[in-house]
Amino acid sequence: MNASPNSSAPIVLTTDFGLSDAFVGVMKGVILRINPLATIIDLTHDIRPQNLQQGAFVLGVNYPYFPPGSIHVAVVDPGVGTNRRAIVLETPGAVFVAPDNGLLSEVIKRNLPTGKNIEQPQDGSPGVVDLPDSLKAYELTEGSYRLEPVSSTFHGRDVFAPAAAHISMGVAPAEMGPRIDKLVYHPLPEPTRTGDVLAGEVIYVDRYGNLITNISRSDFSIAEGSSAKASVEIAGCQIHGLSRTFHDEQAGVVSSPAVPPLVALFGSSGYLEVAVPDGNAAQSLSAGTGTIVRFTSSR
Amino acid sequence: MNASPNSSAPIVLTTDFGLSDAFVGVMKGVILRINPLATIIDLTHDIRPQNLQQGAFVLGVNYPYFPPGSIHVAVVDPGVGTNRRAIVLETPGAVFVAPDNGLLSEVIKRNLPTGKNIEQPQDGSPGVVDLPDSLKAYELTEGSYRLEPVSSTFHGRDVFAPAAAHISMGVAPAEMGPRIDKLVYHPLPEPTRTGDVLAGEVIYVDRYGNLITNISRSDFSIAEGSSAKASVEIAGCQIHGLSRTFHDEQAGVVSSPAVPPLVALFGSSGYLEVAVPDGNAAQSLSAGTGTIVRFTSSR
Amino acid sequence: MNASPNSSAPIVLTTDFGLSDAFVGVMKGVILRINPLATIIDLTHDIRPQNLQQGAFVLGVNYPYFPPGSIHVAVVDPGVGTNRRAIVLETPGAVFVAPDNGLLSEVIKRNLPTGKNIEQPQDGSPGVVDLPDSLKAYELTEGSYRLEPVSSTFHGRDVFAPAAAHISMGVAPAEMGPRIDKLVYHPLPEPTRTGDVLAGEVIYVDRYGNLITNISRSDFSIAEGSSAKASVEIAGCQIHGLSRTFHDEQAGVVSSPAVPPLVALFGSSGYLEVAVPDGNAAQSLSAGTGTIVRFTSSR
Repeated sequence: MNASPNSSAPIVLTTDFGLSDAFVGVMKGVILRINPLATIIDLTHDIRPQNLQQGAFVLGVNYPYFPPGSIHVAVVDPGVGTNRRAIVLETPGAVFVAPDNGLLSEVIKRNLPTGKNIEQPQDGSPGVVDLPDSLKAYELTEGSYRLEPVSSTFHGRDVFAPAAAHISMGVAPAEMGPRIDKLVYHPLPEPTRTGDVLAGEVIYVDRYGNLITNISRSDFSIAEGSSAKASVEIAGCQIHGLSRTFHDEQAGVVSSPAVPPLVALFGSSGYLEVAVPDGNAAQSLSAGTGTIVRFTSSR
Repeated sequence: MNASPNSSAPIVLTTDFGLSDAFVGVMKGVILRINPLATIIDLTHDIRPQNLQQGAFVLGVNYPYFPPGSIHVAVVDPGVGTNRRAIVLETPGAVFVAPDNGLLSEVIKRNLPTGKNIEQPQDGSPGVVDLPDSLKAYELTEGSYRLEPVSSTFHGRDVFAPAAAHISMGVAPAEMGPRIDKLVYHPLPEPTRTGDVLAGEVIYVDRYGNLITNISRSDFSIAEGSSAKASVEIAGCQIHGLSRTFHDEQAGVVSSPAVPPLVALFGSSGYLEVAVPDGNAAQSLSAGTGTIVRFTSSR
Repeated sequence: MNASPNSSAPIVLTTDFGLSDAFVGVMKGVILRINPLATIIDLTHDIRPQNLQQGAFVLGVNYPYFPPGSIHVAVVDPGVGTNRRAIVLETPGAVFVAPDNGLLSEVIKRNLPTGKNIEQPQDGSPGVVDLPDSLKAYELTEGSYRLEPVSSTFHGRDVFAPAAAHISMGVAPAEMGPRIDKLVYHPLPEPTRTGDVLAGEVIYVDRYGNLITNISRSDFSIAEGSSAKASVEIAGCQIHGLSRTFHDEQAGVVSSPAVPPLVALFGSSGYLEVAVPDGNAAQSLSAGTGTIVRFTSSR
């Protein structure tokens, strides 16, 4: 096995179930029936319903902060009960139990050999990735690791939670079903470069209304720009210079007088963010997921 | 004792306290003061404020998924500080600490001998149930298992959390106060049958707007209908045939053109649900708790 | 050391991060990487964004209910990434890891020698307190107890969570940086007394709309009033007599016919609360934090 799952590795839950119903609580009950000593942690349950892109981003960015061998249960599952596969994916750092619908794309991307370029369908539909040797996936078909009878509408409780609990008890993923060498793959869009300009888009909006883009710090270092000379264009506004904190005194100058002061900075996830200090950038700019961002790092 | 409470059995919390205040967090602090090794799980804290029926349903449907001997703390308690009793109830599968106000009715119903018919007051007010031998209840009166001085407005912290923690440490419920043989009992309404037609009602609406009714899969099998020939009438709409998933291609035909496609299926709790695929049935139908549902399983 | 931190003491989290993003989940991941056996409890994550007064109140009122030696991580941190200090504070009952921005003021107040009067700036800006011998504070500067590289926008993950985890593993706070003898101090306003009248204000509104004031039970006993003769004036309404529960039959008489019945009582936190039985006092009275309350305890 790549990872070393065992009873002390935490089980980490990420879903779009919310906390207003008992869906999450009952998954924990099922886990504890199998492993009474499991440590169970919530990453978040407020992925917007059925938003695979948001779920993929949150998982990909945050899973490296958990202990090696952590067992992630990820359930954003519009196709529950249909013929989409339920899978377990072993990576060098963690194990993932999830539907095979693209939800693990950002995890997979971070584990592909550098420079490996996956062709994606031009029409925006999900593609498929051939897994490298460092990633092993299995379909969850073995009945003894499910909660029978399996409902057709709540695999979080009947398929994914039990699989994670059994893995935390030492069951090898390879025992849970046949090996798979391709998974559904639909990573976030990459920014495109034209000279000094990177064109990207907003891929996540947090509770404060900060706009997180798909332009990463590594894109910036490739561009070798300096913070002071960088500029960001979004929703008709221009931000000159990058800030270090949300209250940086070098906050950007903005072209439009109707908009409050904006700052642009590389945030805690390593991506370019646009924020209004003490305000809500998403509201002020009427911006959201998909809004175009242009980043210029001229010298 | 019926159940075998001990320090490895989880303490499961279900309340209407929400998570925006510190009510739930402080209950956990009180539990850990008594049992530092307690495993504490949230079922949900978003029972609608003081909605005993919703709390009873969520508890009754979900408690069987938790480990045997789990200690449930259930607090929906409009009468806190009045003369309503605080109790502990031992069942063969779990222990419940709660106010004696009907909140445990669905748990009790699932533990009554088959065919036992409890007469309910005609005016909709709560009745009383004589407990069978398999259920043992005690009033929580013993001061040494409370947090003194007991406030008159927060028994979750001062009475229920400490009782559960002491039980998880091995204290027998029988030591906590005098035995009681009757409890307040106000189960959910049962559907009524007329020929091939079951008339029931919506008893729960989940975060997706799915309408969960009081018509259970066992009612359906008694009717010996076939899925294809069943039909559901709700809010002026007719759904023909039962689906297996929310995206079933055999989705029902609906009589009203103003309403999006509806499906009816037996959901993960075992009850008939009405849903709009990728939509919100409660909003589309202007339906909610109490909305009448007619289920026909003609052959 | 004053407290005795060790691996069985829980780590208790209080933030304004909400649960819709992964901020809280990732803090827990960081803690478990350092201490895989940590017990982690949420007090609440719904402190209103950047509201230091609310955070201070919630911490001060609730921390005594947690096990001795508990390690509190408190993050309401508008100045993250600026030159505000990150600190650990040892008190006789618990350890606190937090920014030095006044968030611990109500904890400190409860640990000051009786009668110690701290002068506060007249303009409402935060003051500074000289710590008594019973309180020991250290600045979190030691790099080996941080997650490097430290981001400039998420010290919850990179500074506070790791510090708490290391303390739970037995690292002494004194090893984490230089001792500090003054902390930022901005306690809640005290009520003022004129004859039989205490003038205070609303300092917290809970999810039920109950208005919690800064008039405490100890202020009342000093006044030696009797419950029946006390009266409360708020938002143009007069409440005669104190109730014991939210449904007390001795509910107060109210002067304005446009307002539903109001009750005033000393709540579970020990402070005077104004509530509408089965209603929302904040909405009914258009009242909130800062609303003036007059409490008369004439004999």
